[in-house]
Amino acid sequence: MVPPVMTVNPIVPQVDPADHHLVEVREDGHEILRGQFLHAFRDTVRLPNARTATREYFVHPGAVMVIPLLTTPDGRTQLVMERQYRYPVGQVMLEFPAGKIDPGEDTWLCAQRELREETGYTATEWARAGVTHPVIAYSTESIEIWFARGLTAGARALDNEEFLDVITLTPADLMQRCMQGLVTDAKTLAGMLWLQNTQGPTATWPLVWQSVGVD
Amino acid sequence: MVPPVMTVNPIVPQVDPADHHLVEVREDGHEILRGQFLHAFRDTVRLPNARTATREYFVHPGAVMVIPLLTTPDGRTQLVMERQYRYPVGQVMLEFPAGKIDPGEDTWLCAQRELREETGYTATEWARAGVTHPVIAYSTESIEIWFARGLTAGARALDNEEFLDVITLTPADLMQRCMQGLVTDAKTLAGMLWLQNTQGPTATWPLVWQSVGVD
Repeated sequence: MVPPVMTVNPIVPQVDPADHHLVEVREDGHEILRGQFLHAFRDTVRLPNARTATREYFVHPGAVMVIPLLTTPDGRTQLVMERQYRYPVGQVMLEFPAGKIDPGEDTWLCAQRELREETGYTATEWARAGVTHPVIAYSTESIEIWFARGLTAGARALDNEEFLDVITLTPADLMQRCMQGLVTDAKTLAGMLWLQNTQGPTATWPLVWQSVGVD
Repeated sequence: MVPPVMTVNPIVPQVDPADHHLVEVREDGHEILRGQFLHAFRDTVRLPNARTATREYFVHPGAVMVIPLLTTPDGRTQLVMERQYRYPVGQVMLEFPAGKIDPGEDTWLCAQRELREETGYTATEWARAGVTHPVIAYSTESIEIWFARGLTAGARALDNEEFLDVITLTPADLMQRCMQGLVTDAKTLAGMLWLQNTQGPTATWPLVWQSVGVD
């Protein structure tokens, strides 16, 4: 086991002055785990009532998720999804493609890379929908949500340790599975909220599309 | 720092035989962190190609989230929400009430307890919507999503270390904030998918309501 290192974590509070009755301020802290993947800290914070408390959390590099809109030859939309065994929950999960951001990597380029590596698809148009924080109680992780369209199939480039099936589903199929409790991944459910409100007859949320490869 | 303990984690795979080309099987493992809150393991798993890999993850007791539907005197619906500073993301987050399940606690009773403690509200009718897994890559956590209605205001009973504002919003207000990127908590966005499809004019997903206190 790697010994703890006195590393300072990078949290920078973004707080409205009107919310000072809620804010916790870091007083001290140190790394409590440097695993191969997990990296955790324990900080002492000053509470709004001036007492102190302990906060333990993982530091995560951030991730992107892609909602790939595939147009079939007859003009209908299908979603490119992954089925992947997720060890911590012991289940094969139905998910939108996603992956961690490499150090210094632009999130849009990360989205393009993850879609290509995991599903083989490339996309000509992209729209950044928003952000979700999957686990605000104990991780710094944020996930940028991107839509992709103008898809072309190609070869996958999975990591040695990655095993996943790529499938396509209609939005109606996927909504049905959400209702039935067959889709439980939080980032994917957050993506479904974006899908339902940006695509199809009930859409009212705008997306701003950007083209790639038109330098 | 607490030394690592050779504790076996409780993951029980739930897998369809047709998915054996995806499944990772535990070969060995041990605890790598026993913090005050965070409890992490590192397991060696056998991959579908018979190689081995390392999986690090946090063991979580599970949680519940409540979507509280408050009927105003003029018959409209409002949502009871919380604004709470979340240290790992450095922001005040707008969330549905939620909390961890106590050891052995029934999830419905947990939902009732968390709603009462954090917001002061009690509810006469409850419906279990489904489950979400917030962080399938590195935590066992699952969150049961419950709807509550027939609300009565009362006194809160916050922990010493808990500071949060309780506010009410219309569903339309909250949807607007989701569109604007002002709601990013994944469990809350998953709850919004359930809200949008079970309440109001566009609802098509069924809920089964149960009454409390009618022994």
